[in-house]
Amino acid sequence: METELSKKLGVEHAIFGFTPFPAVAAAITRAGGFGVLGAVRYTAPDDLKRDLDWMQEHTGGKPYGLDVVMPAKKAVDGVSEADIEAMIPAGHREFVRDTLAKHHVPELAEGEASGWRITGWMEQVARSQLDVAFDYPIKLLANALGSPPADVIARAHDHGVLVAALAGSAKHARRHAEAGIDIVVAQGYEAGGHTGDIATMVLVPEITEAVAPLPVLAAGGIGSGEQIAAGLALGAQGAWLGSLWLTTTEADLHSRALTEKLLAAGSGDTVRSRALTGKPARQLRTEWTDAWDDPDGPGALPMPLQGLLVAEAVSRIQKYEVQPLLGTPVGQIVGRMNSERSVQAVFDDLTGGFERAIDRVNRIAGRA
Amino acid sequence: METELSKKLGVEHAIFGFTPFPAVAAAITRAGGFGVLGAVRYTAPDDLKRDLDWMQEHTGGKPYGLDVVMPAKKAVDGVSEADIEAMIPAGHREFVRDTLAKHHVPELAEGEASGWRITGWMEQVARSQLDVAFDYPIKLLANALGSPPADVIARAHDHGVLVAALAGSAKHARRHAEAGIDIVVAQGYEAGGHTGDIATMVLVPEITEAVAPLPVLAAGGIGSGEQIAAGLALGAQGAWLGSLWLTTTEADLHSRALTEKLLAAGSGDTVRSRALTGKPARQLRTEWTDAWDDPDGPGALPMPLQGLLVAEAVSRIQKYEVQPLLGTPVGQIVGRMNSERSVQAVFDDLTGGFERAIDRVNRIAGRA
Repeated sequence: METELSKKLGVEHAIFGFTPFPAVAAAITRAGGFGVLGAVRYTAPDDLKRDLDWMQEHTGGKPYGLDVVMPAKKAVDGVSEADIEAMIPAGHREFVRDTLAKHHVPELAEGEASGWRITGWMEQVARSQLDVAFDYPIKLLANALGSPPADVIARAHDHGVLVAALAGSAKHARRHAEAGIDIVVAQGYEAGGHTGDIATMVLVPEITEAVAPLPVLAAGGIGSGEQIAAGLALGAQGAWLGSLWLTTTEADLHSRALTEKLLAAGSGDTVRSRALTGKPARQLRTEWTDAWDDPDGPGALPMPLQGLLVAEAVSRIQKYEVQPLLGTPVGQIVGRMNSERSVQAVFDDLTGGFERAIDRVNRIAGRA
Repeated sequence: METELSKKLGVEHAIFGFTPFPAVAAAITRAGGFGVLGAVRYTAPDDLKRDLDWMQEHTGGKPYGLDVVMPAKKAVDGVSEADIEAMIPAGHREFVRDTLAKHHVPELAEGEASGWRITGWMEQVARSQLDVAFDYPIKLLANALGSPPADVIARAHDHGVLVAALAGSAKHARRHAEAGIDIVVAQGYEAGGHTGDIATMVLVPEITEAVAPLPVLAAGGIGSGEQIAAGLALGAQGAWLGSLWLTTTEADLHSRALTEKLLAAGSGDTVRSRALTGKPARQLRTEWTDAWDDPDGPGALPMPLQGLLVAEAVSRIQKYEVQPLLGTPVGQIVGRMNSERSVQAVFDDLTGGFERAIDRVNRIAGRA
């Protein structure tokens, strides 16, 4: 499965696997795909350094990338996390407390840090990640939230690193192209995480045309080789898969109950909700998302307030595995994630399914 | 573009075109596809008879089908349209009057009938349509709303007519299969008209597996040969296209302003709203859909009340081409409907684009 882009990056298959787990990212790269490590959970640069050292040792010289969440709009200088925390209305804090109390969610232990942090989207945190990352031979820097700032793009290019950015609309993609990025990830409505309203089937050709000749990756709803073939037929130069890896044996969700929930969920069990970050992100539908999406509730705050508001609560829900509230970002493809397998086994299914899909469309086209 | 199903139906290309316009349906059939005439607008059986006579004369013996909207649940015997009208709350009628008044929508002339009727979804109306239809050599009967009643399926089979039903979820599709239908149209979130929340990319493989070995058609977001190739790669035995034909020269929307609106609309200009029928249906987003979707408004009534409530209003909006309120069911593919062309020209684009997509995926698969 070879495209201009896969050749440029030196990978055997044009399959891009996004994951927050180094063991998964490395296994994707070893299998012949392109592993992309999500950095949003790293608050301390040393933690990222440790995991990139590990990636180096476990990818055998094959290429991989890093995904950060960096807003293009500059935060006001000197605004700290504490300043942003202070903007959160008391009523919203009360709603968090009440919702947790209703479900008897225990407190964290005295002095125990909130394990679930997504402060990586704050520019200063993302920049400290990059200071670490450019010491490693990463081949791709992806940004999940708008185009990266111009100096970051320039710095990546100086290091010979290609820059990718996610887009949910052609307009958004055109802005990325104008900013000088190299690859657009066209992320459809059905995708896990931050996503717009346009479905992958419509979005991929629209963005491909809008940013030509820049290469586009198809994202959203892709969890089989048949779906990869569909994405490539739509004009993409590769497929970008995130959700599918969550139930691989290498993934480390830190919660058996959450893994079980993913394995049991159907394609209709996700919702695009602002509950987690303040921007619409697809995730498992839970009583937690229902509470935030309830028109009679206070509603989610804008990014980055919502993420800061709920960080400790989400840690508690995950630590104590409070079933009705337990969720995670995941796409509609969760309906097909029904068994735990190794990354290699999943990867073999993808390439096998792709070949079968090509056989199939060739028969239909009378070329068999 | 030949599948088992296209061979069974005797068509050259596995492209199914749904349209309310006989001239479009006939042109699709003549071009080598399978034209499906939507019957929901026909209230009088004689009107349907007239148009099926016309279809016979203009399809040169090539196959075509009919689409009805027949609920599987039986209406209570003896309940008339007037009885149903009486269930509509006065506040909702007032909201219709106020919304029309706010936009200065003129009244219909004295004695002028509401041209826009969708009473075809009432079982007695759909049954009278079938009494007409089975006198013609239709090859397919499609039902847009659940499985048709068992006796209708039996009657179709007695006439050698295949029965198709639309589904927005695997569960829904399984029910159709159990009811004895022959083909499932897997209609994704991005489709125009009644649709669920699961996108085509995820829905088609899910339904294909759920109802195997029944053939599945991919619907939703399909308006190019590349998208047809994607649908087929996902396991479908053909593509079902509806929106795309609305801007063909053979289509007769009775409103130049509406055609212009469709040509100008982007993929983000539709909304899945209950405004038109009481069930979520994708359509152009207008101030009319906004009014019904407004959480501070009265909200849409359930089907069939909403359709009866708004029928006259929609006629007035369309007749007087009241711009801010003027809409129509259409899918996200509307963003790519940017010129008026003949059905034949559109069809040639579909088959040409399909061949290009097959060339492309073959190159990627190293089979070129």
